[in-house]
Amino acid sequence: MDERVLLTGAEGRVGRAVLGGIGDAYEWRLFDRDPPAEEHDHEFVVADVTDDEAVRDAMADVDVVVHLAGDPRPEAPWNSVLTNNIDGTQTVYEAAVETGVETVVFASSNHAVGHYETERKPDLYRTDDDYRLDGTELPRPSNLYGVSKAAGETLGRYYHDEHDLSVACVRIGNLTKGHPPIDYERGQAMWLSYRDCAHLFERCIEADYGYEIVYGISDNDRKYYSLERAKDVLGYDPQDNSAEYTMAGEPKSDV
Amino acid sequence: MDERVLLTGAEGRVGRAVLGGIGDAYEWRLFDRDPPAEEHDHEFVVADVTDDEAVRDAMADVDVVVHLAGDPRPEAPWNSVLTNNIDGTQTVYEAAVETGVETVVFASSNHAVGHYETERKPDLYRTDDDYRLDGTELPRPSNLYGVSKAAGETLGRYYHDEHDLSVACVRIGNLTKGHPPIDYERGQAMWLSYRDCAHLFERCIEADYGYEIVYGISDNDRKYYSLERAKDVLGYDPQDNSAEYTMAGEPKSDV
Repeated sequence: MDERVLLTGAEGRVGRAVLGGIGDAYEWRLFDRDPPAEEHDHEFVVADVTDDEAVRDAMADVDVVVHLAGDPRPEAPWNSVLTNNIDGTQTVYEAAVETGVETVVFASSNHAVGHYETERKPDLYRTDDDYRLDGTELPRPSNLYGVSKAAGETLGRYYHDEHDLSVACVRIGNLTKGHPPIDYERGQAMWLSYRDCAHLFERCIEADYGYEIVYGISDNDRKYYSLERAKDVLGYDPQDNSAEYTMAGEPKSDV
Repeated sequence: MDERVLLTGAEGRVGRAVLGGIGDAYEWRLFDRDPPAEEHDHEFVVADVTDDEAVRDAMADVDVVVHLAGDPRPEAPWNSVLTNNIDGTQTVYEAAVETGVETVVFASSNHAVGHYETERKPDLYRTDDDYRLDGTELPRPSNLYGVSKAAGETLGRYYHDEHDLSVACVRIGNLTKGHPPIDYERGQAMWLSYRDCAHLFERCIEADYGYEIVYGISDNDRKYYSLERAKDVLGYDPQDNSAEYTMAGEPKSDV
């Protein structure tokens, strides 16, 4: 457990969920374009993920990179995702190979496959619909942000096949703190609780794999993403389920 | 047959094969970064495919875009394929939507899936191996050029799903004039003759489809790419087969 992990985009929402859950489990080096909003117990590098040299320097003595940095807005314009997400992710993979990092965990997104929902919604958000995406399907992005995430997955496939880098791509669902989205079936179908998020990234840091695409959601009754691969290969064992919350956002009673 | 077709990358090898075969069948507008090496009978625009305004202007009154432009080198560096292939292809799709073009035919590449060969070569190049890729598989690029072509396919999926653009992605094999590569099993497996190339692009211009990924090869005995989708959806009817050529590059006798 003395592994050194570089976390890019540490100041974003996923970064906070990860550090909140497993911040004490590793020797973290945090990396973000913006200086930290609060004091951290960890080393912190302020630099841009498209800066080759800064990214290489930040990988010194690093075993695993958790790469979250990028423009997180589903509506982000092309020029931003081209630079920050596609070029930035290539920079990370390339630096990982050059510096001898073993594993890159890449934050992909449900938006890489959002258009599979078009012909089936809202049925696929319901518990009686057994439609599942399992990570073997071709991308069908719902926006240019989703295109950029699919490109990051394909880059990972290349760096795995060509350079033997271990790569896990996590298609993150709807990460919200405390409880699932209210009155939003899609959000409940792809809810990811903070603790399941931290646990899933811990499994991505710990498990042995070559190249994986997994879905990052809690074990929601409404799910249309398969969790089989995350469970089988990574040992993911989600604790939460959006169905356990009432529409008011409070946990249901145990009765 | 009075359709107006914009051909980007017209001066490249694929462009020449297309124009050599179906140059009289459409009203072409040719587009290339370089001025024409020889006189053309068609309108010719000299501009870069990353120039939004030039690309939009070139699409005026165009029905179909055949998009071949890009850095064609398998060994091309990242910065070049990021700009010329990924950004350039997004520019083409975006302009197509803005100007009301109905169909974009995108020149993808065998390099988008080159790493499927790694564990199976050279067996999969042999006629007794029935392994087939059919276009439903996730990309496994053999280089960053292949990554850029896979990204162009994913962009096409998005522009189809979101904007109802018809998009055909042709994973072009090994296009050589006259006869297949000699002493090169892989090249014989994915050979595409000039006449089959022109015919396949003619089918992509004529057929009705939504979004397709097809393989662009002749009907080679050695093939490990399925032609079913190209035949079924596009009406592709290839005439050539690399097995009909001796190792000396001459057609076999009919005996």
